Amino acid sequence: MLQKTACFLVIGNEILSGRTQDANTRVLAQALNAQGIRLMEVRVIPDIDEWIIRTVRECSAAFDLVFTSGGIGPTHDDITAECVATAMGAPLVRHEESFSLLEAALGKERFNTARQRMAYLPEGATPILNTVSVAPGFSIGNVHVMAGVPAIFASMVAWLVPQLEKGAPLVSASWHAVGLKEGDFASDLATLQETFPTIDLGSYPYHLPEGSGGVALVAKGYDAGIVEKAALAIHDLIMAHGREPLSGEPPHRQGA
Amino acid sequence: MLQKTACFLVIGNEILSGRTQDANTRVLAQALNAQGIRLMEVRVIPDIDEWIIRTVRECSAAFDLVFTSGGIGPTHDDITAECVATAMGAPLVRHEESFSLLEAALGKERFNTARQRMAYLPEGATPILNTVSVAPGFSIGNVHVMAGVPAIFASMVAWLVPQLEKGAPLVSASWHAVGLKEGDFASDLATLQETFPTIDLGSYPYHLPEGSGGVALVAKGYDAGIVEKAALAIHDLIMAHGREPLSGEPPHRQGA
Repeated sequence: MLQKTACFLVIGNEILSGRTQDANTRVLAQALNAQGIRLMEVRVIPDIDEWIIRTVRECSAAFDLVFTSGGIGPTHDDITAECVATAMGAPLVRHEESFSLLEAALGKERFNTARQRMAYLPEGATPILNTVSVAPGFSIGNVHVMAGVPAIFASMVAWLVPQLEKGAPLVSASWHAVGLKEGDFASDLATLQETFPTIDLGSYPYHLPEGSGGVALVAKGYDAGIVEKAALAIHDLIMAHGREPLSGEPPHRQGA
Repeated sequence: MLQKTACFLVIGNEILSGRTQDANTRVLAQALNAQGIRLMEVRVIPDIDEWIIRTVRECSAAFDLVFTSGGIGPTHDDITAECVATAMGAPLVRHEESFSLLEAALGKERFNTARQRMAYLPEGATPILNTVSVAPGFSIGNVHVMAGVPAIFASMVAWLVPQLEKGAPLVSASWHAVGLKEGDFASDLATLQETFPTIDLGSYPYHLPEGSGGVALVAKGYDAGIVEKAALAIHDLIMAHGREPLSGEPPHRQGA
Protein backbone atom coordinates (compact mmCIF):
# COMPACT_ATOMS: atom_id res chain seq x y z
CA MET A 1 0.00 0.00 0.00
CA LEU A 2 1.44 3.37 -0.99
CA GLN A 3 1.56 6.41 1.24
CA LYS A 4 -0.99 9.01 0.13
CA THR A 5 -0.38 12.75 0.39
CA ALA A 6 -2.87 15.57 0.92
CA CYS A 7 -2.96 19.35 0.92
CA PHE A 8 -5.57 21.47 2.73
CA LEU A 9 -6.56 24.88 1.33
CA VAL A 10 -8.26 27.17 3.82
CA ILE A 11 -10.00 29.78 1.69
CA GLY A 12 -11.05 33.03 3.33
CA ASN A 13 -9.94 36.40 4.54
CA GLU A 14 -11.23 35.91 8.08
CA ILE A 15 -8.26 33.79 9.20
CA LEU A 16 -5.70 35.97 7.41
CA SER A 17 -7.12 39.07 9.10
CA GLY A 18 -6.77 37.46 12.54
CA ARG A 19 -10.54 37.63 13.02
CA THR A 20 -11.05 33.88 13.30
CA GLN A 21 -8.74 31.11 14.46
CA ASP A 22 -8.56 28.03 12.25
CA ALA A 23 -9.99 24.97 13.97
CA ASN A 24 -10.47 22.80 10.90
CA THR A 25 -6.87 21.74 10.19
CA ARG A 26 -6.69 19.60 13.28
CA VAL A 27 -10.02 17.88 12.56
CA LEU A 28 -8.97 17.07 9.00
CA ALA A 29 -5.44 15.99 9.96
CA GLN A 30 -6.69 13.51 12.54
CA ALA A 31 -9.33 12.04 10.20
CA LEU A 32 -6.72 11.67 7.44
CA ASN A 33 -4.24 9.99 9.81
CA ALA A 34 -6.86 7.37 10.62
CA GLN A 35 -7.28 6.73 6.90
CA GLY A 36 -3.54 6.43 6.26
CA ILE A 37 -3.40 9.72 4.34
CA ARG A 38 -0.65 12.17 5.25
CA LEU A 39 -1.44 15.88 5.38
CA MET A 40 1.72 17.40 3.89
CA GLU A 41 0.83 21.09 3.56
CA VAL A 42 -1.83 23.61 4.56
CA ARG A 43 -2.30 26.91 2.74
CA VAL A 44 -4.53 29.70 3.97
CA ILE A 45 -5.34 31.90 0.97
CA PRO A 46 -7.50 34.98 0.41
CA ASP A 47 -10.89 35.27 -1.39
CA ILE A 48 -9.21 36.33 -4.64
CA ASP A 49 -10.24 34.36 -7.73
CA GLU A 50 -6.88 34.12 -9.53
CA TRP A 51 -5.21 33.20 -6.24
CA ILE A 52 -7.66 30.34 -5.58
CA ILE A 53 -7.51 29.06 -9.18
CA ARG A 54 -3.69 29.08 -9.28
CA THR A 55 -3.39 27.36 -5.89
CA VAL A 56 -5.98 24.65 -6.66
CA ARG A 57 -4.24 23.88 -9.99
CA GLU A 58 -0.80 23.73 -8.39
CA CYS A 59 -1.88 21.58 -5.42
CA SER A 60 -4.17 19.28 -7.42
CA ALA A 61 -1.10 18.38 -9.53
CA ALA A 62 1.36 18.12 -6.61
CA PHE A 63 -0.67 16.04 -4.11
CA ASP A 64 -2.81 12.91 -4.27
CA LEU A 65 -5.70 14.71 -2.62
CA VAL A 66 -6.73 18.34 -2.08
CA PHE A 67 -9.27 19.49 0.49
CA THR A 68 -10.67 23.01 0.70
CA SER A 69 -12.74 24.82 3.31
CA GLY A 70 -14.70 28.03 3.00
CA GLY A 71 -16.35 30.13 0.32
CA ILE A 72 -19.33 27.92 -0.56
CA GLY A 73 -22.10 30.10 0.92
CA PRO A 74 -24.51 32.38 -0.94
CA THR A 75 -22.64 35.71 -0.76
CA HIS A 76 -20.59 37.57 -3.37
CA ASP A 77 -17.28 36.52 -1.79
CA ASP A 78 -18.25 32.82 -1.91
CA ILE A 79 -16.36 32.03 -5.08
CA THR A 80 -14.82 28.64 -4.31
CA ALA A 81 -17.12 26.57 -6.58
CA GLU A 82 -16.54 28.73 -9.66
CA CYS A 83 -12.78 28.94 -9.00
CA VAL A 84 -12.48 25.15 -8.58
CA ALA A 85 -14.53 24.69 -11.77
CA THR A 86 -12.08 26.94 -13.67
CA ALA A 87 -9.04 25.26 -12.12
CA MET A 88 -10.32 21.80 -13.05
CA GLY A 89 -11.44 22.84 -16.54
CA ALA A 90 -15.12 22.04 -15.92
CA PRO A 91 -18.05 24.41 -16.60
CA LEU A 92 -20.17 25.50 -13.62
CA VAL A 93 -23.63 23.95 -14.08
CA ARG A 94 -26.81 23.65 -12.04
CA HIS A 95 -26.63 20.47 -9.99
CA GLU A 96 -30.26 19.30 -10.01
CA GLU A 97 -30.03 17.10 -6.93
CA SER A 98 -28.48 19.90 -4.83
CA PHE A 99 -30.99 22.40 -6.25
CA SER A 100 -33.94 20.25 -5.14
CA LEU A 101 -32.34 19.55 -1.76
CA LEU A 102 -31.70 23.26 -1.10
CA GLU A 103 -35.18 24.24 -2.29
CA ALA A 104 -36.83 21.65 -0.08
CA ALA A 105 -34.78 22.62 2.97
CA LEU A 106 -35.13 26.40 2.60
CA GLY A 107 -38.62 26.63 1.13
CA LYS A 108 -39.47 28.22 -2.24
CA GLU A 109 -39.69 31.76 -0.85
CA ARG A 110 -36.29 31.87 0.89
CA PHE A 111 -34.63 30.02 -2.00
CA ASN A 112 -33.79 33.30 -3.77
CA THR A 113 -31.32 33.95 -6.60
CA ALA A 114 -28.39 34.36 -4.18
CA ARG A 115 -29.11 31.02 -2.53
CA GLN A 116 -29.69 29.31 -5.89
CA ARG A 117 -26.04 30.13 -6.72
CA MET A 118 -25.10 27.48 -4.13
CA ALA A 119 -26.61 24.76 -6.38
CA TYR A 120 -24.13 25.50 -9.19
CA LEU A 121 -21.26 23.01 -9.09
CA PRO A 122 -18.52 22.07 -11.57
CA GLU A 123 -19.88 19.62 -14.17
CA GLY A 124 -19.26 16.04 -12.98
CA ALA A 125 -19.01 16.98 -9.30
CA THR A 126 -20.51 14.65 -6.67
CA PRO A 127 -21.97 16.16 -3.47
CA ILE A 128 -20.31 15.86 -0.05
CA LEU A 129 -23.12 15.43 2.46
CA ASN A 130 -23.31 16.48 6.09
CA THR A 131 -25.83 16.14 8.90
CA VAL A 132 -25.77 19.79 10.06
CA SER A 133 -26.89 21.80 7.03
CA VAL A 134 -27.59 21.72 3.30
CA ALA A 135 -24.29 23.45 2.50
CA PRO A 136 -23.24 22.15 -0.92
CA GLY A 137 -19.85 20.48 -0.49
CA PHE A 138 -18.63 18.51 -3.48
CA SER A 139 -15.80 16.40 -4.92
CA ILE A 140 -14.38 16.80 -8.42
CA GLY A 141 -11.32 14.87 -9.50
CA ASN A 142 -8.95 14.81 -6.53
CA VAL A 143 -10.37 18.06 -5.07
CA HIS A 144 -12.84 17.95 -2.17
CA VAL A 145 -14.64 21.21 -1.41
CA MET A 146 -16.12 21.70 2.06
CA ALA A 147 -17.72 24.41 4.21
CA GLY A 148 -15.67 26.60 6.56
CA VAL A 149 -18.09 26.67 9.50
CA PRO A 150 -16.42 24.22 11.91
CA ALA A 151 -19.52 22.16 12.78
CA ILE A 152 -20.39 21.68 9.09
CA PHE A 153 -16.76 21.06 8.12
CA ALA A 154 -16.38 18.37 10.78
CA SER A 155 -19.58 16.67 9.67
CA MET A 156 -18.44 16.68 6.02
CA VAL A 157 -15.03 15.26 7.00
CA ALA A 158 -16.73 12.52 9.03
CA TRP A 159 -18.87 11.60 5.99
CA LEU A 160 -16.20 11.90 3.30
CA VAL A 161 -12.85 10.74 4.64
CA PRO A 162 -13.78 7.14 5.58
CA GLN A 163 -14.92 6.66 1.95
CA LEU A 164 -11.53 7.65 0.50
CA GLU A 165 -9.09 4.98 -0.62
CA LYS A 166 -6.85 4.11 2.32
CA GLY A 167 -3.15 4.80 2.33
CA ALA A 168 -0.50 2.98 4.35
CA PRO A 169 -1.40 3.64 8.01
CA LEU A 170 1.03 5.71 10.05
CA VAL A 171 1.83 4.21 13.46
CA SER A 172 3.07 6.34 16.34
CA ALA A 173 4.29 5.80 19.90
CA SER A 174 5.48 8.31 22.46
CA TRP A 175 7.00 8.87 25.89
CA HIS A 176 7.29 12.13 27.78
CA ALA A 177 9.18 13.34 30.83
CA VAL A 178 8.69 16.30 33.15
CA GLY A 179 11.82 18.39 33.69
CA LEU A 180 13.51 17.24 30.50
CA LYS A 181 14.69 19.92 28.04
CA GLU A 182 15.29 19.43 24.31
CA GLY A 183 18.88 20.61 24.50
CA ASP A 184 19.75 17.99 27.13
CA PHE A 185 19.34 15.01 24.80
CA ALA A 186 19.44 16.50 21.29
CA SER A 187 22.69 14.72 20.29
CA ASP A 188 21.39 11.36 21.56
CA LEU A 189 18.11 11.87 19.70
CA ALA A 190 20.02 12.69 16.49
CA THR A 191 21.98 9.43 16.92
CA LEU A 192 18.69 7.57 17.49
CA GLN A 193 17.29 9.11 14.30
CA GLU A 194 20.32 7.74 12.41
CA THR A 195 19.69 4.30 13.95
CA PHE A 196 16.05 4.37 12.78
CA PRO A 197 16.20 6.13 9.39
CA THR A 198 12.70 4.99 8.29
CA ILE A 199 11.10 6.41 11.46
CA ASP A 200 10.29 10.07 12.05
CA LEU A 201 11.50 11.06 15.54
CA GLY A 202 10.09 14.30 16.92
CA SER A 203 10.46 16.12 20.22
CA TYR A 204 7.76 18.45 21.52
CA PRO A 205 8.42 20.66 24.53
CA TYR A 206 5.43 21.44 26.72
CA HIS A 207 4.85 23.95 29.48
CA LEU A 208 2.74 23.40 32.56
CA PRO A 209 0.60 26.24 33.91
CA GLU A 210 2.62 26.31 37.17
CA GLY A 211 5.81 27.14 35.25
CA SER A 212 7.54 23.78 34.92
CA GLY A 213 7.45 21.70 31.75
CA GLY A 214 8.94 18.81 29.86
CA VAL A 215 9.32 17.19 26.48
CA ALA A 216 7.30 14.56 24.60
CA LEU A 217 9.27 12.30 22.27
CA VAL A 218 7.33 10.75 19.43
CA ALA A 219 8.26 7.99 16.96
CA LYS A 220 6.22 7.69 13.75
CA GLY A 221 6.46 5.34 10.84
CA TYR A 222 4.77 2.79 8.61
CA ASP A 223 6.29 -0.34 10.18
CA ALA A 224 4.71 -1.01 13.61
CA GLY A 225 7.58 -3.31 14.66
CA ILE A 226 10.23 -0.67 14.02
CA VAL A 227 8.12 2.05 15.69
CA GLU A 228 7.90 -0.18 18.77
CA LYS A 229 11.69 -0.65 18.83
CA ALA A 230 12.22 3.10 18.43
CA ALA A 231 9.77 3.78 21.29
CA LEU A 232 11.75 1.42 23.52
CA ALA A 233 14.92 3.30 22.63
CA ILE A 234 13.17 6.61 23.48
CA HIS A 235 12.18 5.14 26.85
CA ASP A 236 15.83 4.24 27.54
CA LEU A 237 17.06 7.64 26.35
CA ILE A 238 14.81 9.38 28.90
CA MET A 239 16.02 6.99 31.65
CA ALA A 240 19.64 7.69 30.68
CA HIS A 241 18.98 11.38 31.27
CA GLY A 242 17.75 10.67 34.80
CA ARG A 243 14.03 11.27 34.18
CA GLU A 244 11.04 9.03 34.54
CA PRO A 245 9.51 8.08 31.16
CA LEU A 246 5.74 8.70 31.29
CA SER A 247 3.37 7.12 28.80
CA GLY A 248 0.41 8.84 27.16
CA GLU A 249 0.07 12.47 26.28
CA PRO A 250 1.59 15.23 28.43
CA PRO A 251 -0.95 17.32 30.38
CA HIS A 252 -0.52 20.39 28.16
CA ARG A 253 1.10 20.78 24.77
CA GLN A 254 2.65 23.54 22.76
CA GLY A 255 4.29 23.53 19.35
CA ALA A 256 8.08 23.74 19.31
CA MET B 1 2.06 54.87 1.47
CA LEU B 2 1.94 51.53 -0.33
CA GLN B 3 0.16 48.46 0.92
CA LYS B 4 2.64 45.86 2.19
CA THR B 5 2.08 42.12 1.82
CA ALA B 6 3.26 39.29 4.03
CA CYS B 7 3.34 35.50 4.06
CA PHE B 8 3.61 33.34 7.20
CA LEU B 9 5.33 29.95 7.03
CA VAL B 10 4.51 27.61 9.88
CA ILE B 11 7.27 25.01 9.85
CA GLY B 12 6.69 21.75 11.65
CA ASN B 13 5.08 18.35 11.50
CA GLU B 14 3.13 18.77 14.75
CA ILE B 15 0.40 20.91 13.19
CA LEU B 16 0.17 18.78 10.04
CA SER B 17 -0.22 15.65 12.16
CA GLY B 18 -3.11 17.20 14.09
CA ARG B 19 -1.12 16.99 17.31
CA THR B 20 -1.03 20.73 17.94
CA GLN B 21 -3.39 23.51 16.91
CA ASP B 22 -1.82 26.62 15.42
CA ALA B 23 -2.27 29.65 17.68
CA ASN B 24 0.40 31.86 16.14
CA THR B 25 -1.34 32.95 12.92
CA ARG B 26 -3.87 35.05 14.76
CA VAL B 27 -1.21 36.75 16.90
CA LEU B 28 0.88 37.63 13.85
CA ALA B 29 -2.11 38.72 11.74
CA GLN B 30 -3.33 41.15 14.38
CA ALA B 31 0.13 42.63 14.97
CA LEU B 32 0.62 43.07 11.21
CA ASN B 33 -2.81 44.73 10.81
CA ALA B 34 -1.79 47.32 13.39
CA GLN B 35 1.35 48.00 11.37
CA GLY B 36 -0.52 48.33 8.06
CA ILE B 37 0.92 45.08 6.70
CA ARG B 38 -1.51 42.64 5.11
CA LEU B 39 -1.09 38.91 5.74
CA MET B 40 -1.93 37.43 2.33
CA GLU B 41 -1.08 33.75 2.77
CA VAL B 42 -0.16 31.20 5.42
CA ARG B 43 1.57 27.92 4.59
CA VAL B 44 2.05 25.09 7.05
CA ILE B 45 4.89 22.95 5.75
CA PRO B 46 6.72 19.84 7.03
CA ASP B 47 10.25 19.56 8.51
CA ILE B 48 11.72 18.56 5.13
CA ASP B 49 14.74 20.57 4.02
CA GLU B 50 14.02 20.85 0.27
CA TRP B 51 10.41 21.74 1.07
CA ILE B 52 11.42 24.57 3.42
CA ILE B 53 14.10 25.90 1.04
CA ARG B 54 11.76 25.92 -1.98
CA THR B 55 8.94 27.59 -0.03
CA VAL B 56 11.16 30.29 1.53
CA ARG B 57 12.61 31.12 -1.91
CA GLU B 58 9.21 31.28 -3.56
CA CYS B 59 7.58 33.37 -0.82
CA SER B 60 10.55 35.68 -0.29
CA ALA B 61 10.25 36.63 -3.97
CA ALA B 62 6.43 36.88 -4.04
CA PHE B 63 5.76 38.90 -0.86
CA ASP B 64 7.21 42.04 0.74
CA LEU B 65 7.79 40.17 4.00
CA VAL B 66 8.04 36.53 5.08
CA PHE B 67 7.67 35.33 8.68
CA THR B 68 8.42 31.80 9.83
CA SER B 69 7.71 29.93 13.06
CA GLY B 70 9.22 26.71 14.35
CA GLY B 71 12.35 24.64 13.90
CA ILE B 72 14.90 26.84 15.69
CA GLY B 73 15.51 24.62 18.72
CA PRO B 74 18.49 22.36 19.39
CA THR B 75 17.20 19.02 18.01
CA HIS B 76 17.93 17.22 14.74
CA ASP B 77 14.60 18.28 13.20
CA ASP B 78 15.28 21.97 13.93
CA ILE B 79 16.55 22.82 10.46
CA THR B 80 14.96 26.21 9.79
CA ALA B 81 18.15 28.30 10.17
CA GLU B 82 20.18 26.18 7.75
CA CYS B 83 17.30 25.99 5.24
CA VAL B 84 16.75 29.77 5.33
CA ALA B 85 20.51 30.26 4.91
CA THR B 86 20.46 28.06 1.78
CA ALA B 87 17.31 29.74 0.43
CA MET B 88 18.81 33.21 0.90
CA GLY B 89 22.23 32.19 -0.47
CA ALA B 90 24.08 32.96 2.78
CA PRO B 91 26.47 30.58 4.57
CA LEU B 92 25.53 29.43 8.09
CA VAL B 93 28.06 30.96 10.49
CA ARG B 94 28.48 31.21 14.25
CA HIS B 95 26.76 34.36 15.46
CA GLU B 96 29.07 35.50 18.27
CA GLU B 97 26.54 37.67 20.09
CA SER B 98 23.95 34.85 20.17
CA PHE B 99 26.64 32.36 21.17
CA SER B 100 27.63 34.47 24.20
CA LEU B 101 24.00 35.13 25.10
CA LEU B 102 23.11 31.43 24.98
CA GLU B 103 26.23 30.44 26.89
CA ALA B 104 25.55 32.99 29.61
CA ALA B 105 21.90 31.99 29.95
CA LEU B 106 22.44 28.22 29.93
CA GLY B 107 25.80 27.96 31.70
CA LYS B 108 28.95 26.41 30.21
CA GLU B 109 28.02 22.86 31.21
CA ARG B 110 24.53 22.76 29.69
CA PHE B 111 25.70 24.64 26.59
CA ASN B 112 26.57 21.40 24.78
CA THR B 113 27.18 20.80 21.06
CA ALA B 114 23.47 20.38 20.33
CA ARG B 115 22.62 23.70 21.98
CA GLN B 116 25.58 25.44 20.33
CA ARG B 117 23.92 24.67 16.95
CA MET B 118 21.31 27.30 17.89
CA ALA B 119 23.99 30.02 17.67
CA TYR B 120 24.58 29.34 13.96
CA LEU B 121 22.69 31.85 11.82
CA PRO B 122 22.87 32.85 8.16
CA GLU B 123 25.72 35.34 7.60
CA GLY B 124 24.41 38.90 7.93
CA ALA B 125 21.38 37.91 10.06
CA THR B 126 20.29 40.19 12.91
CA PRO B 127 18.75 38.61 16.04
CA ILE B 128 15.05 38.89 16.93
CA LEU B 129 14.89 39.26 20.70
CA ASN B 130 12.20 38.15 23.12
CA THR B 131 11.61 38.43 26.85
CA VAL B 132 10.70 34.77 27.49
CA SER B 133 13.77 32.79 26.41
CA VAL B 134 17.10 32.92 24.61
CA ALA B 135 15.65 31.22 21.52
CA PRO B 136 17.61 32.58 18.56
CA GLY B 137 15.12 34.27 16.24
CA PHE B 138 16.66 36.29 13.41
CA SER B 139 15.98 38.44 10.35
CA ILE B 140 17.78 38.11 7.03
CA GLY B 141 16.67 40.07 3.99
CA ASN B 142 12.87 40.11 4.05
CA VAL B 143 12.65 36.83 6.02
CA HIS B 144 11.97 36.88 9.77
CA VAL B 145 12.55 33.59 11.60
CA MET B 146 10.79 33.03 14.94
CA ALA B 147 10.16 30.29 17.49
CA GLY B 148 7.06 28.08 17.35
CA VAL B 149 6.32 27.96 21.10
CA PRO B 150 3.39 30.39 21.35
CA ALA B 151 4.66 32.41 24.33
CA ILE B 152 8.06 32.95 22.69
CA PHE B 153 6.51 33.60 19.27
CA ALA B 154 4.18 36.26 20.69
CA SER B 155 7.07 37.94 22.50
CA MET B 156 9.16 37.99 19.30
CA VAL B 157 6.25 39.43 17.31
CA ALA B 158 5.73 42.12 19.94
CA TRP B 159 9.43 43.06 19.69
CA LEU B 160 9.83 42.83 15.91
CA VAL B 161 6.66 44.00 14.19
CA PRO B 162 6.50 47.59 15.56
CA GLN B 163 10.03 48.10 14.15
CA LEU B 164 9.01 47.17 10.59
CA GLU B 165 8.31 49.86 8.03
CA LYS B 166 4.62 50.69 8.17
CA GLY B 167 2.25 50.02 5.30
CA ALA B 168 -0.98 51.81 4.55
CA PRO B 169 -3.25 51.08 7.54
CA LEU B 170 -6.34 48.99 6.92
CA VAL B 171 -9.49 50.45 8.46
CA SER B 172 -12.51 48.31 9.29
CA ALA B 173 -16.03 48.81 10.59
CA SER B 174 -18.76 46.27 11.25
CA TRP B 175 -22.38 45.68 12.24
CA HIS B 176 -24.00 42.41 13.17
CA ALA B 177 -27.55 41.17 13.61
CA VAL B 178 -29.01 38.18 15.42
CA GLY B 179 -31.41 36.09 13.30
CA LEU B 180 -29.99 37.29 9.99
CA LYS B 181 -28.82 34.65 7.49
CA GLU B 182 -26.31 35.17 4.68
CA GLY B 183 -28.71 34.02 2.00
CA ASP B 184 -31.32 36.62 3.01
CA PHE B 185 -29.26 39.61 1.91
CA ALA B 186 -26.60 38.17 -0.41
CA SER B 187 -27.90 39.98 -3.54
CA ASP B 188 -28.07 43.31 -1.69
CA LEU B 189 -24.57 42.81 -0.33
CA ALA B 190 -23.26 42.03 -3.84
CA THR B 191 -24.85 45.31 -5.04
CA LEU B 192 -23.22 47.14 -2.12
CA GLN B 193 -19.86 45.62 -3.07
CA GLU B 194 -20.31 47.03 -6.59
CA THR B 195 -21.12 50.45 -5.10
CA PHE B 196 -17.91 50.37 -3.01
CA PRO B 197 -15.38 48.64 -5.27
CA THR B 198 -12.32 49.78 -3.24
CA ILE B 199 -13.77 48.32 -0.02
CA ASP B 200 -13.70 44.68 0.95
CA LEU B 201 -17.16 43.63 2.18
CA GLY B 202 -17.32 40.37 4.12
CA SER B 203 -20.11 38.51 5.89
CA TYR B 204 -19.38 36.16 8.78
CA PRO B 205 -22.12 33.91 10.15
CA TYR B 206 -21.92 33.09 13.83
CA HIS B 207 -23.69 30.55 16.00
CA LEU B 208 -24.75 31.06 19.58
CA PRO B 209 -24.44 28.18 22.07
CA GLU B 210 -28.23 28.06 22.54
CA GLY B 211 -28.75 27.27 18.85
CA SER B 212 -29.60 30.64 17.34
CA GLY B 213 -27.11 32.77 15.45
CA GLY B 214 -26.61 35.70 13.13
CA VAL B 215 -24.23 37.37 10.73
CA ALA B 216 -21.53 40.01 11.14
CA LEU B 217 -20.98 42.30 8.16
CA VAL B 218 -17.55 43.88 7.89
CA ALA B 219 -16.25 46.68 5.64
CA LYS B 220 -12.48 46.98 5.21
CA GLY B 221 -10.37 49.36 3.21
CA TYR B 222 -7.59 51.93 3.15
CA ASP B 223 -9.79 55.06 2.99
CA ALA B 224 -11.45 55.68 6.37
CA GLY B 225 -14.09 57.97 4.83
CA ILE B 226 -15.25 55.36 2.34
CA VAL B 227 -15.20 52.61 5.00
CA GLU B 228 -17.47 54.81 7.14
CA LYS B 229 -19.89 55.29 4.24
CA ALA B 230 -19.91 51.55 3.55
CA ALA B 231 -20.59 50.84 7.24
CA LEU B 232 -23.57 53.18 7.12
CA ALA B 233 -24.88 51.32 4.08
CA ILE B 234 -24.41 48.01 5.94
CA HIS B 235 -26.40 49.42 8.85
CA ASP B 236 -29.24 50.33 6.46
CA LEU B 237 -29.08 46.94 4.72
CA ILE B 238 -29.64 45.17 8.06
CA MET B 239 -32.53 47.54 8.88
CA ALA B 240 -34.07 46.87 5.45
CA HIS B 241 -34.08 43.17 6.29
CA GLY B 242 -36.04 43.82 9.48
CA ARG B 243 -33.22 43.22 11.97
CA GLU B 244 -31.62 45.45 14.54
CA PRO B 245 -28.04 46.42 13.62
CA LEU B 246 -25.77 45.80 16.62
CA SER B 247 -22.35 47.39 16.91
CA GLY B 248 -19.19 45.69 18.16
CA GLU B 249 -18.27 42.04 17.82
CA PRO B 250 -20.89 39.26 17.98
CA PRO B 251 -20.76 37.14 21.15
CA HIS B 252 -19.30 34.09 19.39
CA ARG B 253 -17.73 33.76 15.99
CA GLN B 254 -17.13 31.02 13.50
CA GLY B 255 -15.51 31.08 10.05
CA ALA B 256 -17.88 30.84 7.08
